[in-house]
Amino acid sequence: MSVYTPVSEIELGDWLKSYSVGRLVSCEPVEAGIENSNYFVTTTQGRYVLTLFERLPAEELAFYLDLMAHLARHGIPCPAPIADLSDQYLGRLNGKPAALVTRLPGRSIDSPEAAHCEELGALLARMHLAGRSYSAYLENPRGPKWWRFAAREVQPFLDGAKRSLLEKELGFQAEHRFPDLPRGPVHADLFRDNALFENARISGVVDFYFAGVDCLLYDLAVCANDWCLGSGFGLDAARVGALLSAYQSLRSFSAAEREAWPVMLRAAALRFWLSRLYDFHLPRPGMLVHAHDPEHFRHVLESRIAAPAPWMA
Amino acid sequence: MSVYTPVSEIELGDWLKSYSVGRLVSCEPVEAGIENSNYFVTTTQGRYVLTLFERLPAEELAFYLDLMAHLARHGIPCPAPIADLSDQYLGRLNGKPAALVTRLPGRSIDSPEAAHCEELGALLARMHLAGRSYSAYLENPRGPKWWRFAAREVQPFLDGAKRSLLEKELGFQAEHRFPDLPRGPVHADLFRDNALFENARISGVVDFYFAGVDCLLYDLAVCANDWCLGSGFGLDAARVGALLSAYQSLRSFSAAEREAWPVMLRAAALRFWLSRLYDFHLPRPGMLVHAHDPEHFRHVLESRIAAPAPWMA
Repeated sequence: MSVYTPVSEIELGDWLKSYSVGRLVSCEPVEAGIENSNYFVTTTQGRYVLTLFERLPAEELAFYLDLMAHLARHGIPCPAPIADLSDQYLGRLNGKPAALVTRLPGRSIDSPEAAHCEELGALLARMHLAGRSYSAYLENPRGPKWWRFAAREVQPFLDGAKRSLLEKELGFQAEHRFPDLPRGPVHADLFRDNALFENARISGVVDFYFAGVDCLLYDLAVCANDWCLGSGFGLDAARVGALLSAYQSLRSFSAAEREAWPVMLRAAALRFWLSRLYDFHLPRPGMLVHAHDPEHFRHVLESRIAAPAPWMA
Repeated sequence: MSVYTPVSEIELGDWLKSYSVGRLVSCEPVEAGIENSNYFVTTTQGRYVLTLFERLPAEELAFYLDLMAHLARHGIPCPAPIADLSDQYLGRLNGKPAALVTRLPGRSIDSPEAAHCEELGALLARMHLAGRSYSAYLENPRGPKWWRFAAREVQPFLDGAKRSLLEKELGFQAEHRFPDLPRGPVHADLFRDNALFENARISGVVDFYFAGVDCLLYDLAVCANDWCLGSGFGLDAARVGALLSAYQSLRSFSAAEREAWPVMLRAAALRFWLSRLYDFHLPRPGMLVHAHDPEHFRHVLESRIAAPAPWMA
């Protein structure tokens, strides 16, 4: 269970008095997620998620919460932060920065089909279009600067082949940056478990705590490497096609984006290989479970290098 | 049917492209309301209400839409305006100012019981507490200034007894103003048909287009005169008690508020007697139906004068 900071019903009931959400009915810890302590909170008014932030810096929290609020008021089905009576999204509970957001209906899909990827592509496009008028800036916290930091930290734990793969990919990516691609706020972590479906429609996109400003195409690459994975770590053409076509019907890709696609897929694989290596070899004290196997994304990266994905929309 | 400005599915589908709410699925005119043209709009993302504003001034619209947005992000179940891609709540459609807001679930209650009034009281208190941090200002557009204007307009249509009642009540109210009562944004029109219930809980408070800044107690008086009406236009003690007690558990009434209660009930009755007289005798061109019978609120006013309501919380 990924709950680091316990919260009693008495503490929570008291804390909720500084909100306009009614009285506490129930509270249960959420057993997913590795970054924060999360609770499902039900009040006489509705269903919420309470998050206690265990390590994110305050300036990043404001970016994430304001981004969710911005997207929610544009109709994107993302958690809407609830402001307290002093009109703030971010409070403190049991010594930690804490926020209350709406809880969205639906369930995540383990084995997505092309129709789910079509839904996802349309949602990503709408999210990117709505994000254009969001003016706050936070560099993608898991971008190239972080790759280099993480690579230095994990290198001592790698054998020669993996170390060489990592060095070569960092070099390749450094030679292939895309300053001219359309940029904006991206979710940057929209794996299957961060999207909820209800009646075959996306009813929620959750967990914006890796969001940042980056190439919009990067969001699609992160999604493709997870939602469209075929046999042997390759990409399933039908699902990638559905993802990109649905997106494209709302926001056209530039020629530069189509060209950058194979490199972006490698960048997205590299980022998650690195973070999984980091969490595996350098677990934070108190980090309980849920460290993902780093090997998965090494295989994905090797597959993207061996067979550069053509543009499929 | 209260739809003044027709909107075709083609026009609406096109207009929705400037929002992030997905594609139009269906649109049907709403047959209630006398001020604006309303449509229930369903898209691939969700359910919304489209309002075309037929006569409200633009500065008032900003106050209403921003107030709804403010309350919604504090967890009050009110329609949340959806911002368009240029980040505006207010757009234009077929020559009219127009806005898209979320459509809330639930149904209104025709014959409320004490438990419904308790729900309402708690919700009003939460709404008033959340409204404290709303900084925009609009004087209650149906306050004393408007009473005097409307009284001049309708007087020619009244017989001697009604004219005398109106003059006396305007005089009485002018002698009993309450500048020291707690003030803030009030809904000011929270009749039974503007509250939606689901599973015995209030799931929606709608139609904020008469909101303004006034005594908070005024909101309770408007509600009491509608939700707590007993036989012979008197107040039902059990329902008024439930309304005020539930409110009081979240925001304490001052001694001045308790003292002002009987006068405030008369003010609330006067306001609706006047507006119904006005709509009855001076209907706007193109106003289709739904003009309420003015006599109802004359009876309510006479009842409040004859038997001043004691404080019942």
